Amino acid sequence: MKKLLIVFAIALALAAAAAAQMEWVTYSGDYSGQRHSTLKQIDRTNVAKLHVKWMYQTNDLNQFEVTPIVSGGVMYISEPPSNAAALDLHTGRPLWLYRRALPNDIHVCCGQVNRGVALLGDVVYLGTLDAHLIALDAKTGHMLWDTAVADYKTGYSITVAPLALKDKIIIGMSGGEYGVRGFLDAYDPKTGARLWRFWTVPGPGEPGHETWAGDSWKTGSAATWVTGSYDANLNLIYWGTGNPGPDYDGDIRKGDDLYSDSLLALDASTGKLKWHYQFTPNDTHDWDSTHTPVLIDTQFRGRARKLVAVANRNGFFYVLDRETGEFLIGKPFAKEIWATEIDSHGRPIVIPNTRPTPEGVPMYPGVHGGTNYMSPSYSPETGLFYVSARQEPTSYYRATPEYDAGTYYVAGGNRGIPGVEPSGAIKALDPQSGEVRWEFPLHSPPWSGVLSTSGGLVFGGTAEGNVFALDSATGKPLWDFQTGATVTSNPISYELDGKQYVALAAGRALIAFGLE
Amino acid sequence: MKKLLIVFAIALALAAAAAAQMEWVTYSGDYSGQRHSTLKQIDRTNVAKLHVKWMYQTNDLNQFEVTPIVSGGVMYISEPPSNAAALDLHTGRPLWLYRRALPNDIHVCCGQVNRGVALLGDVVYLGTLDAHLIALDAKTGHMLWDTAVADYKTGYSITVAPLALKDKIIIGMSGGEYGVRGFLDAYDPKTGARLWRFWTVPGPGEPGHETWAGDSWKTGSAATWVTGSYDANLNLIYWGTGNPGPDYDGDIRKGDDLYSDSLLALDASTGKLKWHYQFTPNDTHDWDSTHTPVLIDTQFRGRARKLVAVANRNGFFYVLDRETGEFLIGKPFAKEIWATEIDSHGRPIVIPNTRPTPEGVPMYPGVHGGTNYMSPSYSPETGLFYVSARQEPTSYYRATPEYDAGTYYVAGGNRGIPGVEPSGAIKALDPQSGEVRWEFPLHSPPWSGVLSTSGGLVFGGTAEGNVFALDSATGKPLWDFQTGATVTSNPISYELDGKQYVALAAGRALIAFGLE
Repeated sequence: MKKLLIVFAIALALAAAAAAQMEWVTYSGDYSGQRHSTLKQIDRTNVAKLHVKWMYQTNDLNQFEVTPIVSGGVMYISEPPSNAAALDLHTGRPLWLYRRALPNDIHVCCGQVNRGVALLGDVVYLGTLDAHLIALDAKTGHMLWDTAVADYKTGYSITVAPLALKDKIIIGMSGGEYGVRGFLDAYDPKTGARLWRFWTVPGPGEPGHETWAGDSWKTGSAATWVTGSYDANLNLIYWGTGNPGPDYDGDIRKGDDLYSDSLLALDASTGKLKWHYQFTPNDTHDWDSTHTPVLIDTQFRGRARKLVAVANRNGFFYVLDRETGEFLIGKPFAKEIWATEIDSHGRPIVIPNTRPTPEGVPMYPGVHGGTNYMSPSYSPETGLFYVSARQEPTSYYRATPEYDAGTYYVAGGNRGIPGVEPSGAIKALDPQSGEVRWEFPLHSPPWSGVLSTSGGLVFGGTAEGNVFALDSATGKPLWDFQTGATVTSNPISYELDGKQYVALAAGRALIAFGLE
Repeated sequence: MKKLLIVFAIALALAAAAAAQMEWVTYSGDYSGQRHSTLKQIDRTNVAKLHVKWMYQTNDLNQFEVTPIVSGGVMYISEPPSNAAALDLHTGRPLWLYRRALPNDIHVCCGQVNRGVALLGDVVYLGTLDAHLIALDAKTGHMLWDTAVADYKTGYSITVAPLALKDKIIIGMSGGEYGVRGFLDAYDPKTGARLWRFWTVPGPGEPGHETWAGDSWKTGSAATWVTGSYDANLNLIYWGTGNPGPDYDGDIRKGDDLYSDSLLALDASTGKLKWHYQFTPNDTHDWDSTHTPVLIDTQFRGRARKLVAVANRNGFFYVLDRETGEFLIGKPFAKEIWATEIDSHGRPIVIPNTRPTPEGVPMYPGVHGGTNYMSPSYSPETGLFYVSARQEPTSYYRATPEYDAGTYYVAGGNRGIPGVEPSGAIKALDPQSGEVRWEFPLHSPPWSGVLSTSGGLVFGGTAEGNVFALDSATGKPLWDFQTGATVTSNPISYELDGKQYVALAAGRALIAFGLE
């Protein structure tokens, strides 16, 4: 009986937490990937009064891409290159700092960055650039265990924020430009022992292996470098995969190169594949599909459905059935694009002559994509999906690579296109139709994610350093603050002492905003 | 008649500027070195509502020590290592950036830093770490001229903000730990031609040369690395000088080592010495006296006098007659000190056995001084002199140096003292008596200067990242903001669109604060 009462109390506590999302306990706020805060104290009427509450500054010039975790009056962050800190939520002052000693020969394509930690109970989990997963005491920052996920010397690294389930820590990897073979792992939170691994490039004898030519699967990449989502009822993990390796030359690999550029639905208990959907078969444009998948429960075409939505680096917006992987919608959210449409089977109808040549072929989207690693958001109240969209073509060219373990392995490159001025926008997409409902233009392509709130707001950031709030129903700008450096992180919201705050990183500063 | 009218209009404009100090046109606000703003919109009653208006972030991990210049709706700053920028005063967004390409073999003891630019008309002046003085078009940042002040290969560098007089640019130098010979220079604002040089270490045949043993004058240092003050009526420049070289061993140099650790009064037209006062004869503790001298016109001991006040790195607070150099007051502003008193002639009565030994001798103040390069301020309204005071003893030890041109040349070093917890304070000193009138304790020794305002406030910053405002009459804390990184600059204040702002740099961020 006592046990039942405790269970009931926990259920009540969980219900209360759901009703008022006071904390920010996982990368996307909750497992749905919606990055939507149900807090509504900051709203359309008062957001113009938002001010900086405190700042925290890192001591590193690499991009500060963290999504903070907030729990128990503490903010847990990672810092570049592979450090972690706990900050007092009232002042931003550090309670502890963990400094990872990194080897000198780590391999990263795009900056020595990290996107955040995971928290489970009293333990903080951090992936490191030398491809380890480590557990730190949340009270002290002292290391509890340190597990080598992969051998960094062969090109692996970790930049992704881990995802903590109730009994396992899910962690992806980076290294798509270093000839690695991708995977997604689950680890025991207490011991650091590996529970399962799903190879995102199938080996000999496995389904999908036939989509790779010769030995190309061994360096097929399909990295898993942005945190995925989880449906506890279906017990499925949803996780995106990166480009096939080597970049730019599809002929080396031939076939569709499964499961690169795909959305995977994996059984959380076993790591077995339930279904997959590939956005860009035989990709030659570096269009990693590592976006956080957004899980949406809604009426769709006349009946209640469990959906998953992805605004893809390839410029299309997709809606799938997340129980079955059934393709439902694939519509471009950018104006110019590489494919005429996504056919009824979910396969792109590619415009001819869009693949890289030795001379170079100009393309929309460019190498940085129609969007990128920054998080989208979804508001159940407006029913809209918000994405930081990039309009920036590049010219893609092809070259002949040589594989040397642990070194850069790509089959070409890209250049800007003279005379074309890149731009950006926050776009509100309708998952019912795939249409763009409104857009708020930005001077240049953004690197910041978005956050929607029940205050009727969408928060985002610009490459010019602005943090802003838009009306989530109309896209009307309501507030703006200049941080002085490019925003390269994802905003969050939390409540402290009965007051709502919004926080994000810009440049070397983590900034908490409040109404006074 | 028309000419007279114009002159009259200019006089009126100058009077108006004096009545309401809207801009911040030189390092200390004006030539007096008082770093006092007559703006009073932000006052004791409303300072608690001060908020961040905008931020600007540098892309360099060296200390951001700038005092910004504000004029014509633009903020002109330097950034580490030797860069400059013009920022839109409304948004903090850069209008232009100047990036100095530095050689790889520059020599600096204490970080690749810069303390600010000077502005004269439409020209911005910047000293660089490779010991050049350069002129930049204030509208575009384009270089107008570039003059080598000294040969950086022999250990010279420039970190000081130039001082712009109406017809000359005064610039000091750094390199006191590299066996250089100190000087202060004046340059033609239009051409960059040198107008005069005053050697702070007298050569053979010059008065004061006899205070150096043998050839020790050649490496005597006495650098001039913090911006001085100017009395236009007396046409005198007041500038402090640094430690004698080599540090720590007075026996190598013997004598008083003029004009090290001194306050110099130089004729602005000729650079000739009018008078000098030496704070620390034959210094062995690295107590540079490069503080900005504060010029005060006040009733003193029954008559109106022109004074100059200095709170010194050696822990004493000095008041002199600035027409004659007459010593008036020398009182400790720290509790424990190296001398029992300053005698009536202005010479310290040194406590025996306080000089460095091979084993080490613990001392108050320590190597970073009772205060340091950060600016003090003086409020004509309270009649108080405010200083960021440091309480941090170190043990000084002695060693035998070898001189090798352009390399580090010191005769010992220093260590922290185990078990002694350093601390700090903002202290309000009374120039009438030399007494401490109030003090506001800080957790650790500060590196931020102070600003006083006619709003009855003193602004300052802490090593822990706080920016704060105190009641200038009582020291009572009224406002506090956490910037997330050590404050290593000097606050300023200005008015824009009828509103008062306060700005300063902390960590990698320059922050403008306003009432909304």
